Amino acid sequence: MPVVITEIPRPPETLVQAFEELDVATVHEAQGRKGLLASYMRPIYRPTKIIGTAVTCQVAPGDNWMIHVAVEQCQAGDILVVAPTSLCEDGYFGDLLANSLQARGVLGLVIDAGVRDVATLTEINFPVWSKAISAQGTVKETLGNVNTPLVCAGALVHPGDLIIADDDGVVVVRQDEATQVLEKARSRLANEEYKRQQLQEGVLGLDLYKMRERLTEKGLKYVKYSEQN
Amino acid sequence: MPVVITEIPRPPETLVQAFEELDVATVHEAQGRKGLLASYMRPIYRPTKIIGTAVTCQVAPGDNWMIHVAVEQCQAGDILVVAPTSLCEDGYFGDLLANSLQARGVLGLVIDAGVRDVATLTEINFPVWSKAISAQGTVKETLGNVNTPLVCAGALVHPGDLIIADDDGVVVVRQDEATQVLEKARSRLANEEYKRQQLQEGVLGLDLYKMRERLTEKGLKYVKYSEQN
Amino acid sequence: MPVVITEIPRPPETLVQAFEELDVATVHEAQGRKGLLASYMRPIYRPTKIIGTAVTCQVAPGDNWMIHVAVEQCQAGDILVVAPTSLCEDGYFGDLLANSLQARGVLGLVIDAGVRDVATLTEINFPVWSKAISAQGTVKETLGNVNTPLVCAGALVHPGDLIIADDDGVVVVRQDEATQVLEKARSRLANEEYKRQQLQEGVLGLDLYKMRERLTEKGLKYVKYSEQN
Amino acid sequence: MPVVITEIPRPPETLVQAFEELDVATVHEAQGRKGLLASYMRPIYRPTKIIGTAVTCQVAPGDNWMIHVAVEQCQAGDILVVAPTSLCEDGYFGDLLANSLQARGVLGLVIDAGVRDVATLTEINFPVWSKAISAQGTVKETLGNVNTPLVCAGALVHPGDLIIADDDGVVVVRQDEATQVLEKARSRLANEEYKRQQLQEGVLGLDLYKMRERLTEKGLKYVKYSEQN
Amino acid sequence: MPVVITEIPRPPETLVQAFEELDVATVHEAQGRKGLLASYMRPIYRPTKIIGTAVTCQVAPGDNWMIHVAVEQCQAGDILVVAPTSLCEDGYFGDLLANSLQARGVLGLVIDAGVRDVATLTEINFPVWSKAISAQGTVKETLGNVNTPLVCAGALVHPGDLIIADDDGVVVVRQDEATQVLEKARSRLANEEYKRQQLQEGVLGLDLYKMRERLTEKGLKYVKYSEQN
Amino acid sequence: MPVVITEIPRPPETLVQAFEELDVATVHEAQGRKGLLASYMRPIYRPTKIIGTAVTCQVAPGDNWMIHVAVEQCQAGDILVVAPTSLCEDGYFGDLLANSLQARGVLGLVIDAGVRDVATLTEINFPVWSKAISAQGTVKETLGNVNTPLVCAGALVHPGDLIIADDDGVVVVRQDEATQVLEKARSRLANEEYKRQQLQEGVLGLDLYKMRERLTEKGLKYVKYSEQN
Repeated sequence: MPVVITEIPRPPETLVQAFEELDVATVHEAQGRKGLLASYMRPIYRPTKIIGTAVTCQVAPGDNWMIHVAVEQCQAGDILVVAPTSLCEDGYFGDLLANSLQARGVLGLVIDAGVRDVATLTEINFPVWSKAISAQGTVKETLGNVNTPLVCAGALVHPGDLIIADDDGVVVVRQDEATQVLEKARSRLANEEYKRQQLQEGVLGLDLYKMRERLTEKGLKYVKYSEQN
Repeated sequence: MPVVITEIPRPPETLVQAFEELDVATVHEAQGRKGLLASYMRPIYRPTKIIGTAVTCQVAPGDNWMIHVAVEQCQAGDILVVAPTSLCEDGYFGDLLANSLQARGVLGLVIDAGVRDVATLTEINFPVWSKAISAQGTVKETLGNVNTPLVCAGALVHPGDLIIADDDGVVVVRQDEATQVLEKARSRLANEEYKRQQLQEGVLGLDLYKMRERLTEKGLKYVKYSEQN
Repeated sequence: MPVVITEIPRPPETLVQAFEELDVATVHEAQGRKGLLASYMRPIYRPTKIIGTAVTCQVAPGDNWMIHVAVEQCQAGDILVVAPTSLCEDGYFGDLLANSLQARGVLGLVIDAGVRDVATLTEINFPVWSKAISAQGTVKETLGNVNTPLVCAGALVHPGDLIIADDDGVVVVRQDEATQVLEKARSRLANEEYKRQQLQEGVLGLDLYKMRERLTEKGLKYVKYSEQN
Repeated sequence: MPVVITEIPRPPETLVQAFEELDVATVHEAQGRKGLLASYMRPIYRPTKIIGTAVTCQVAPGDNWMIHVAVEQCQAGDILVVAPTSLCEDGYFGDLLANSLQARGVLGLVIDAGVRDVATLTEINFPVWSKAISAQGTVKETLGNVNTPLVCAGALVHPGDLIIADDDGVVVVRQDEATQVLEKARSRLANEEYKRQQLQEGVLGLDLYKMRERLTEKGLKYVKYSEQN
Repeated sequence: MPVVITEIPRPPETLVQAFEELDVATVHEAQGRKGLLASYMRPIYRPTKIIGTAVTCQVAPGDNWMIHVAVEQCQAGDILVVAPTSLCEDGYFGDLLANSLQARGVLGLVIDAGVRDVATLTEINFPVWSKAISAQGTVKETLGNVNTPLVCAGALVHPGDLIIADDDGVVVVRQDEATQVLEKARSRLANEEYKRQQLQEGVLGLDLYKMRERLTEKGLKYVKYSEQN
Repeated sequence: MPVVITEIPRPPETLVQAFEELDVATVHEAQGRKGLLASYMRPIYRPTKIIGTAVTCQVAPGDNWMIHVAVEQCQAGDILVVAPTSLCEDGYFGDLLANSLQARGVLGLVIDAGVRDVATLTEINFPVWSKAISAQGTVKETLGNVNTPLVCAGALVHPGDLIIADDDGVVVVRQDEATQVLEKARSRLANEEYKRQQLQEGVLGLDLYKMRERLTEKGLKYVKYSEQN
């Protein structure tokens, strides 16, 4: 059953690069609020932001053997996405594996478990989003899968999907929806710029978004503090 | 039932400013160890410290509509305090709302839920104390209340109360107790300065606080390691 | 029953210093993956790293009296290790106690509870590994023990044991095993340097660690994406 | 500062009895979804249900002294509501205190902390809603308050308020709102009975609540599985 | 974007019935340890066990509108599987919805959120596996999806998949893998019966599973207590 | 390094039996409030109570191999105590292992991880105290230790120590302190019986424990509700 899928299709580089002006929150909104990993996935340092292609790796609890296997499947521009088959916060990944991934041009790691050597990872500028920081080591005894679809921190990730990760968290975009999401995200962005200026100048969101009438319809009342009963 | 209370009374500016030399721990002690929000409320960047007047906002889970309503009730020197009616870690608040609040002179946000765009919030120096960081967006469908008393992270907050927030957490001071708390906190502070000097010079707390006799009364024994049985 | 053990034996200074080139993850591996404190023990600032001798202090929930007692038992090069007798996240320790410990040359604090005044502790460069940051104060009513063995964050700590704490967490080394652990850790380190170079040059771990054959034996299959059924 | 408020006003017995046909969920809805304690408050045995008047008791972490003080303030039909000033899961309460409360006609305990002797409490039919079950004992050293307003598991409770607790959790009703809440709850109940019959007969909620039109307006689409693109 | 998929294909009834002799742990093992929902999903009463076909329902936080929509898509033998788009523990589901589902022959509910009216649900024998029990109500404002694939408590569920739920938890079996999983599970079961007898008679697992040699190879040592150094 | 210690000394049977009239809370108090396992350790069914001798077993995360090894070291009257080397909630133990232990007269299991087949374990009356219930299986690849001292759920357990486990939780008594603890616990018990009668008759704890004077000394005030300012 354990399998490594090789030569996965990846989105065109220009498509990936086009996401660089976008952040996680905007992309998440643009694709209808799906694909967000759980908020316990935090970057080991801030600020940081990466956009790349998912190589997926499913590991046994307390066992990082398959990460070594996954490294070989990674290429420049990839982001390694690791999930254990059951809850585990061990430190699956440290500076040696980071050296190996950096040598291949991998941009960072997203792992629903623990990471270690975070001082060195910070120094060498290799970003990681993880559930925990832990020095607890792992063994190399049990097989898993590379480049099969997996659930990572509550989100379904297919190999070749786009991963956007920044200080707010991590979102996954399905490869075949990426172009459409990009378009929607860009139009949100354009829209936001105008809103930002208005709000900075003191225009109220109540007016900018024309909310007053609907609030009244729903029954919102305004009462002076001094006139409460 | 949903209501916005307007024109809430606020403490005099000079009173608020007088708290600037104080920190959360000192104020919390000075008022008899009450009014502290739960320790899961963490600042999105450090160091940071703000002191201001509470505008309160109660929201539905996954719905930030009332925050837009609350903005209009805020003025310079205020701190917005938001609590959902049930457990929620969604990202209720991002950079656009921060722009809007900053345009009005609001000092920061305290929210018993999630926040997003933390990279931008850090850049523009808008501090937030929150339960989570999450890119998860919210809807605008359900009414709530502005400037009614609410429980935020385990502490009762009335509109117009003083909020002190720093790297240790957040404490609320009742508006009508603020003068008295200020006095007590100042006397603690004066007292602490002397203690600090003594301790820095190597005087033991056991002697400075005259603890030895009471420890003996309570039955504390000293035994040499080599003479344990 | 409450007792303070005095004049505990400490490891020779040269032995402690010899650990300075090592980090938590390496030491933990070198001693057979034992002695690691739970991963919820996080430093209040990063980067940071200390190595020293444990003085242990067992406290009641919400009561820091025994920390004042423990200070007197500390000397230069020590690390204070504090554990409550039941779950508690109060802020047992703040800047005054830090001043007192720094005056004695103590290197830092490891506490399975909360800490406060973290802005000041960061400024004065006094590192703390804790379960929580909380302004919640404590009382001084109940005795406990100093320099008896205790369980801190899931690890057994004896007074005089070595503590290594860095950005990854905290590990304890039994005093009588320190020399042996040091040796093993050094040999790991030497070994790692070579591996690091190889990996940085792009050699795969699969080859460096000769994993391919064993992976095949265990049944790992490689399948092209385009050839999956 | 520590104080015991005596002779608190209680709602009339007939009013309390009138709530007996109601459950927590119905009352919570009827009062506009406020006053619910956090869902981690669980009964030690099920099924169980009590309705009574709150006597409040604020305790220090790990210290149950004030519960002994509170017992004297309790009378038949009361429910004791206990909250610590900071997070604590110790076993503040056991069979002896339950004997004492039962001797006074107290109906049960709601405690935002731990409880012990749950086998005996179950046998003698004394219900407790708590955050934890723990054999960890407490001390008797620090004062607190009896019958002052407090926040228990996220809800504000005043002495004399109504407490309804059942298998779903615990809700508090303000004494001065009890009559009004009762009325609304009764009308909900009447309403529910009809709905229940309809639903049991197979009428769909979509039709019973006339939801179809609004769903369509909001944009809900129906697509056959076989006709998805 | 919100959509209800109708007329989903379901596995043949005889296939579903064939799973009745199996439990969650056996099925999970038989399909290679995948498809298990997180262990925080607990039944509201025990013992209980159901096997059926998944109808999936994705809801907004604090909003149960789509559950009413999903009811219509359910038929006899189905199990409703509900997941919110972000963390929420509100009581989405109570006795009225249970009446409605029971009227259609639905076997139970699996919900990655809260449930209420658990006393009644227990009485009417409608089993629920949930993350929380909470009386907190929900609104009906925001659309979601019915019968689209979703991630529930960390597991990917497609409409029409088999759900097996018992006292140990919940597992999902892909519809197109069900026959194969059934076979493997049955052979495990047969195998287990023999092992059970042997173990009950006192045969050691070490011998039954022939582990001794491999343990020795791996380096396990046996030392008498009295002969430890 | 992995080792199985055989022929551990056990306390005399009569000593163990003498604890049968005692419960966890009483024993915990009697030994000075130490040795209690964390309150997340809950029995899979209630009521239940066992007293026996600890056989300890340290396992790798997600790997139950050593439990099979430990079985052989167990004899009638033992309780198996299992702790993983890092956080893990997998179902390490099920009905087959329970059959094997029951065949040897083992009384129950205490495991700082998950357990499965709880319906069967309940039927065959084999009690387990665990951190989680989970159907997630484990592998058999990595060695650990049997009958070495370990930390289980925050408490240090040596092989041969006494374990008392009931509905309140689990406490460990050091073998060499058992006689002394027994005596103290018995005297507590005798003492409690008198107190219980007094309290049941309505005598207040305030009087029975003579607390009134000390409360006054500490500064407790009594104020009538109607006379508050």
